[in-house]
Amino acid sequence: MELNAYIKDLCQKAKAANNSLALSSLDRRNAILSRIADALIENSDAIIKANEEDLRLSVEKGLSAAMQDRLKLSLERIAAIAASVRKLIALPDPLGRSEGFTRPSGLYIERVTVPLGNIGIIYEARPNVTVDAAVLCLKSGNCAILRGGKEAYNTNLALEATIKGALEKEGFSPDLVSLIHDTSREGADIMMGLHGYIDVLIPRGSASLINSVVEKAKVPVIETGAGNCHVYVDEYADIATALKIALSAKISRPSVCNAAEKLLVHKAVASEFLPKIVKLYKENCVTVKGDARVRAICPEVLEASEDDLKREYNDYIITVYVVDSLDDAINHINLYNTGHSEAIITKDITSARKFQDSVNAAAVYVNASTRFTDGEEFGFGAEIGISTQKLHARGPLGLDALTTVKYKIHGDGQIR
Amino acid sequence: MELNAYIKDLCQKAKAANNSLALSSLDRRNAILSRIADALIENSDAIIKANEEDLRLSVEKGLSAAMQDRLKLSLERIAAIAASVRKLIALPDPLGRSEGFTRPSGLYIERVTVPLGNIGIIYEARPNVTVDAAVLCLKSGNCAILRGGKEAYNTNLALEATIKGALEKEGFSPDLVSLIHDTSREGADIMMGLHGYIDVLIPRGSASLINSVVEKAKVPVIETGAGNCHVYVDEYADIATALKIALSAKISRPSVCNAAEKLLVHKAVASEFLPKIVKLYKENCVTVKGDARVRAICPEVLEASEDDLKREYNDYIITVYVVDSLDDAINHINLYNTGHSEAIITKDITSARKFQDSVNAAAVYVNASTRFTDGEEFGFGAEIGISTQKLHARGPLGLDALTTVKYKIHGDGQIR
Repeated sequence: MELNAYIKDLCQKAKAANNSLALSSLDRRNAILSRIADALIENSDAIIKANEEDLRLSVEKGLSAAMQDRLKLSLERIAAIAASVRKLIALPDPLGRSEGFTRPSGLYIERVTVPLGNIGIIYEARPNVTVDAAVLCLKSGNCAILRGGKEAYNTNLALEATIKGALEKEGFSPDLVSLIHDTSREGADIMMGLHGYIDVLIPRGSASLINSVVEKAKVPVIETGAGNCHVYVDEYADIATALKIALSAKISRPSVCNAAEKLLVHKAVASEFLPKIVKLYKENCVTVKGDARVRAICPEVLEASEDDLKREYNDYIITVYVVDSLDDAINHINLYNTGHSEAIITKDITSARKFQDSVNAAAVYVNASTRFTDGEEFGFGAEIGISTQKLHARGPLGLDALTTVKYKIHGDGQIR
Repeated sequence: MELNAYIKDLCQKAKAANNSLALSSLDRRNAILSRIADALIENSDAIIKANEEDLRLSVEKGLSAAMQDRLKLSLERIAAIAASVRKLIALPDPLGRSEGFTRPSGLYIERVTVPLGNIGIIYEARPNVTVDAAVLCLKSGNCAILRGGKEAYNTNLALEATIKGALEKEGFSPDLVSLIHDTSREGADIMMGLHGYIDVLIPRGSASLINSVVEKAKVPVIETGAGNCHVYVDEYADIATALKIALSAKISRPSVCNAAEKLLVHKAVASEFLPKIVKLYKENCVTVKGDARVRAICPEVLEASEDDLKREYNDYIITVYVVDSLDDAINHINLYNTGHSEAIITKDITSARKFQDSVNAAAVYVNASTRFTDGEEFGFGAEIGISTQKLHARGPLGLDALTTVKYKIHGDGQIR
């Protein structure tokens, strides 16, 4: 079958099967999750065998060690994925939450949460996303149309077979979760254009993947991920707290989107704070870049370029700027950030409030690390990504973000 | 200035001014609305003069009488617009609603409603939309970037001047509301591409406008409006109720998106119901089309084509189909509807529930007309459109739909 027709067909089959899931009880949806967790363990051998083939090809293709590590599944990693599926079972039902009101016309209007429908997810070579995305969709009554990275293709096929098998054993249609059996760029482009077939598209991965989806998609998109996060050390900062947070937000896990990429320092504390933090960064193998004012105080700092203002390094690199005021810090952040997570370190209540009110981002912290922007840390359980757009959902996307509402209106003959 | 740079500049000026509005009290935002209502009355002469110029040009261009009527403003119509602005003042503040919780880490996480930012609205030659859209945006702390139809251009300029004057008199920046002083298709296309400048784009108007926005936009869109609405007369319908609703949903205002366009009739009641409703439609100048089974019972009914299945007539035309079962009705609707409003007429509780659960639409009615899908009727006050998409907001878009959330996180030195 031609690629376009093949993908449309997967979406139509999913739509046809959706009501059986959407209208099923929480117990039945949780039973699917439990069955998937079991099946992952039962099929471990087949999954690892497929994964070994992907790893063999990745060595041939010369993938980086970091990429190979992301791709690799072991018995322990499969057990961890199964455990995270089981954890989802405990979360409350996002469906069927309703509030109702009666209008003067006598109509009783009920607003009920319902699934979005077909959720398309485009992601890179992380096999755990295949399972995470599928189970989040299933728990919230949605169908998942998955398009994973080509490096993980064999692993994803084994995972898809595991999930479809579990669905069938629980008496549900295997069409509820489908991996697109094609890893060409064309396939991803087709998904982006399937208005009416895919209700929401969520890209998970690099900035270039996300930009490509934003650029090309004709279906509704939830933009996720890119994080050019700033830590601002205010003139009223507690220096010890500032040092602790500025260091940890950078080094605790530099590869993730909520890691700090930029450090802004108020001029009043620059000469005290900068030498200390630059020393700490150096001790922790962080490359420090800075503007002229930073380099005047710490000459060992590398010169930052215009390009650094916008860059998300995802690495042991940070760029430091000196600002003249709180307003300057806010304006700088609103100009260059990606709407993800921003932090102020201050003891002053007025600075704290102004920063939180004025900075345009999903999560704005006072005296805490940006690294907390995460579904688990926020108490939402698993997450399907972190939204950096304002429409529909912002910040960590929990199960609630995978629902929409429907109005059910009960009348007794009303006309208008 | 080049068109692209000019529109970007309007958006940037709006963004720069936004915090002064977004962080202002409800009283101050309501004062703007009150001032705009006053200014509309004060400037009536200038507005009507500009409108007369548009009407003169519309006669030259040979616009239909209906289009001319939509375009026309009179003292009465301006007073009605001003009254609707005042009505908005009474609505509660959509901003600053918050809920908070403390995490085991000790972080206190507050989720607060905040404005979306820059809202772009592309619409046709209805001058009242210029005012409606502006005041809904202002009340909810947003900036409005308006692109109205060319037929209303002079009127819109007069209305923009009125709104900007009112903003200045209240001590706010006139940049908060801007009309794009260009009515070329190119200008609209540029708006659709301004990712990062326009936070949300809402098209209001014909299906072709909405399709064009969905096709081209790189900014987040709320799809509104198109309504291929069905009334289904179940085998357990009360025939008198069915006749009343099937007639009224078609004829009470055929030009609007919540009017019925299709009538589905269960085969068990077809021979009783069809002759009666066809007679009523005929008496009310409604052209009736139908499938072979309808025409076997009512030979005077015109033959429906494949094209009729999907058409939104917005006119005194309806197409009638006979279905074999409730399931057939649900499947037919889910295949051809636009996700707007659908109704079942039935006395049977099982049919009612199944229909409401299974039909995929923003509003699903039992024993009431589809015509109630409307912000005022739902009790949301004014509306900026009716969303037929599932992301962000579905159904009538009240003030709440013009907000997003921000997480404010309060710590005392937490790192992760």
